[in-house]
Amino acid sequence: MDNNWTLMKMGLKETPSQEDWLISVLPENSKVGVDPWIIAADQWKNMSKALSGAGHSLVAVQDNLIDAIWENRPSRPSTKLTALALKYTGFTWQDKITTLRGKMSERKISWFVVTALDEIAWLFNLRGSDIEYNPVFFAYAIIGMSSIRLFVDSKRLSDPAIREHLELDSPSKPDLSVQCFPYESVYTELQAVCAALEPKDKMWICDKASCALTQAIPKSHRSAIPYTPLCLAKAVKNATEIQGMKMAHIKDAVALCELFAWLEKEIPKGTVTEISAADKAEELRSQQKEFVGLSFPTISSVGPNGAIIHYRPLPETNRTLSLNEVYLIDSGAQYIDGTTDVTRTVHFGTPSEYEKECFTYVLKGHIAVSAAVFPNGTKGHLLDSFARAALWDSGLDYLHGTGHGVGCFLNVHEGPCGISYKTFADEPLEAGMIVSDEPGYYEDGSFGIRLENVVLVVPATTKYNYRNRGSLTFEPLTLVPIQLKMINTDLLTQKERDWVNDYHRKCRETIGAELERQGRKEARDWLIRETQPIV
Amino acid sequence: MDNNWTLMKMGLKETPSQEDWLISVLPENSKVGVDPWIIAADQWKNMSKALSGAGHSLVAVQDNLIDAIWENRPSRPSTKLTALALKYTGFTWQDKITTLRGKMSERKISWFVVTALDEIAWLFNLRGSDIEYNPVFFAYAIIGMSSIRLFVDSKRLSDPAIREHLELDSPSKPDLSVQCFPYESVYTELQAVCAALEPKDKMWICDKASCALTQAIPKSHRSAIPYTPLCLAKAVKNATEIQGMKMAHIKDAVALCELFAWLEKEIPKGTVTEISAADKAEELRSQQKEFVGLSFPTISSVGPNGAIIHYRPLPETNRTLSLNEVYLIDSGAQYIDGTTDVTRTVHFGTPSEYEKECFTYVLKGHIAVSAAVFPNGTKGHLLDSFARAALWDSGLDYLHGTGHGVGCFLNVHEGPCGISYKTFADEPLEAGMIVSDEPGYYEDGSFGIRLENVVLVVPATTKYNYRNRGSLTFEPLTLVPIQLKMINTDLLTQKERDWVNDYHRKCRETIGAELERQGRKEARDWLIRETQPIV
Repeated sequence: MDNNWTLMKMGLKETPSQEDWLISVLPENSKVGVDPWIIAADQWKNMSKALSGAGHSLVAVQDNLIDAIWENRPSRPSTKLTALALKYTGFTWQDKITTLRGKMSERKISWFVVTALDEIAWLFNLRGSDIEYNPVFFAYAIIGMSSIRLFVDSKRLSDPAIREHLELDSPSKPDLSVQCFPYESVYTELQAVCAALEPKDKMWICDKASCALTQAIPKSHRSAIPYTPLCLAKAVKNATEIQGMKMAHIKDAVALCELFAWLEKEIPKGTVTEISAADKAEELRSQQKEFVGLSFPTISSVGPNGAIIHYRPLPETNRTLSLNEVYLIDSGAQYIDGTTDVTRTVHFGTPSEYEKECFTYVLKGHIAVSAAVFPNGTKGHLLDSFARAALWDSGLDYLHGTGHGVGCFLNVHEGPCGISYKTFADEPLEAGMIVSDEPGYYEDGSFGIRLENVVLVVPATTKYNYRNRGSLTFEPLTLVPIQLKMINTDLLTQKERDWVNDYHRKCRETIGAELERQGRKEARDWLIRETQPIV
Repeated sequence: MDNNWTLMKMGLKETPSQEDWLISVLPENSKVGVDPWIIAADQWKNMSKALSGAGHSLVAVQDNLIDAIWENRPSRPSTKLTALALKYTGFTWQDKITTLRGKMSERKISWFVVTALDEIAWLFNLRGSDIEYNPVFFAYAIIGMSSIRLFVDSKRLSDPAIREHLELDSPSKPDLSVQCFPYESVYTELQAVCAALEPKDKMWICDKASCALTQAIPKSHRSAIPYTPLCLAKAVKNATEIQGMKMAHIKDAVALCELFAWLEKEIPKGTVTEISAADKAEELRSQQKEFVGLSFPTISSVGPNGAIIHYRPLPETNRTLSLNEVYLIDSGAQYIDGTTDVTRTVHFGTPSEYEKECFTYVLKGHIAVSAAVFPNGTKGHLLDSFARAALWDSGLDYLHGTGHGVGCFLNVHEGPCGISYKTFADEPLEAGMIVSDEPGYYEDGSFGIRLENVVLVVPATTKYNYRNRGSLTFEPLTLVPIQLKMINTDLLTQKERDWVNDYHRKCRETIGAELERQGRKEARDWLIRETQPIV
């Protein structure tokens, strides 16, 4: 940004909310204009309320002012769609529509306007690549009890495989027949559907949908919900999806073991940089079966760069990996069978006692969450403090949440569950949900530590079973060794040592076998070395 | 309740909210009437919104229907007021008004309508006994930048001590002159104040104030807040209040040590019941200096009665204490210098291994909260899971929060802070706040366990100090031994054993000295026996 702009980091304590800032600078009786297509309905509501409370008003601007001056604007991406086979999805899109309609009729809802791109991709078992890292495509859907309307650039539907997948030319049942409309016609089509509603008809729409589309539904028919039934259904992975996620994490671990073995060899030469290490990680991942692309920009960071939580190496910040600084790599990939996201923090020389101490506190927090046993119905935010207790004891902390939901060959961040001190409205954790467990510690100007596994919520066996509620715990899907050199084992309890040894045994068994199968001997030797038990 | 009534326990998962239940049974276009004087403004708002969304309406009923049929209704209590000396309050009411006005002018507020009885009692350093267990009195106050209006039954103000305390006859400063009005005139007086407001004037009122009083303030002038500045100020105890709370807890511990010594002697005779034990506890407390009364009805419960969380012994449920069942006593008192609330669970014979196991998990949870170190600014709900982790590990849990704020010679339950999985909107914990730490475990039809100390939030010394935020921890104010017989010490970590030993050393030193001073030898011998270190 040049000097015409002032950066105000939203979410920091000292940064006012957009509403508060507007109120503090606006002259009396101001009108604030926004494009209703790019503001969420819930945000419009809050902002409008705050502004009117202060004597101003929020106004929908019909012509977007940026569009008016945007020359040579690229057209909306319209990449090739891919139909996912049943062996990846576990359920056909017809199954999913039927289940969804069951939920709708249970709650006396006649229509559901689907606006979240990952929900549409999941519902129709389709993937695209319109948005970098996220295998989704621009679309809307309007689902009724006997009607399915899909709004998508029509030229994408000329592919015979897609036509067959959606049964466009010969629907098996009339109420499972998909009507296709151009992407842009969603507004007028929604208006037409609304015009034909009976007085008692109710329509679901997510409260994060655009204000424009939301307001197309008359208030008396509108039921705005924070989490749609698709969001909830998508979060609980079925057996096929879980199997796919496990396979994806095995392949991903193979690539990372190779990366670390390679780094150990190359770093002493002084030629590996943050960018080249990230490129190498991508190259190794791309050799794995069903690799599609990265799931987010790789955070490859050395020394002080590691303390910048959302760092991404650029030529002007690029540091060389060395034997003297901590290296943090947070990376992941999209495979057709699943999505990965893993962070490891390593030292290729000798870490300082302080670096080891901080790493060990982060590890203790990671284990406290990963090994936590908790009753069915527990919300993720109730586990957040477990990740921090060891850091807090020493006066340390980290200023981000501990975990986010992870999609299955979908967005690497998805709702409705997570592990964070910030949210209270998250949905309870359920067996089959997949989240990340990623505490950290960041020392500005010096180093960053983060330890992230993707973990699956699984039933736990407990000695007792209070009120028959049942218990849950986590099973790590990520199987990449945690660098022993970074651990001060004196700070671990016996239970924690057992956890590390058990985890490394699993890495060795599962990833070792796959490395062997793929004939990647150097990486296998590295894995064996890195998974020696702590005594 | 006779058979004309159906009990629906609010707060249970299976119980619908009042709104949802009304919507499910009402014919179309119904009107629901409520007395606006006995419904909180926030509850009115929610209920009204839900009902109108379903085509009904919420209507304020001017004449309360119960009042109309209530014969021989007792008049509103109007007990004697007591002025608290500076040695108990730390600040004069004039100091408190001045601080409050500072907060008001900071937020550009011209008036504050005080409706919570404990806030009024705290603000004016006055106490009454209009409500059992809570040393408050019926009153309202309207505070302006140069005006103080107190609404209280006028005959209470004839007492020369009160007139002098409030400087009614010779105010030291005009803006600290208290104008007194009859309790009933608050509505008309508030209307008069509102009629004279300038367009920009804003008035604070708690969103828990009655709907009737709230709506007397025109919307454009009304600023409804969840926690008033008095609620926040009252929660952070000053040095004098902390000293008073400590003294009150020492006296309370003396009474409880005597009680337990007496119970040990008397129970084998088979003559002690839940009621007589509770009476004995009250008798012993009443012998202590500055005793005023109990702070809540004593929960004195044996065996299966202990599993009823809010049990209160009645002649028809009264059980005899024996050598065969667990005994749970949750009790507390009001002293002029402070309020207490303590729960101990004991066995006078030999507890079963299972009872010991459950007790030990509860103890581990109690210690996990009491010894927790956490950053300044942490909200209490983030500590709740620490209290449950040991129970969760074994598939156990308890269905109540872990802690509540405690007043200083005021209500034994007070906001705005607490330790619970239920609330998210609590205020951050601050040094000087006082809360309870009371995990439990309840086995229906069998026994109940709860272990409760009142703890003070204090600064913690940590090895590091991330971003200079500072850390907090808790210091127990309750100093009553935890029965060692109930602990399975094999289940404790060394850190937990050290905590128990350190706690018992403090009990022995502090309460032992006081028992000695008061010449209560038997209780002192009991204390020494019960505070032997665990090896």
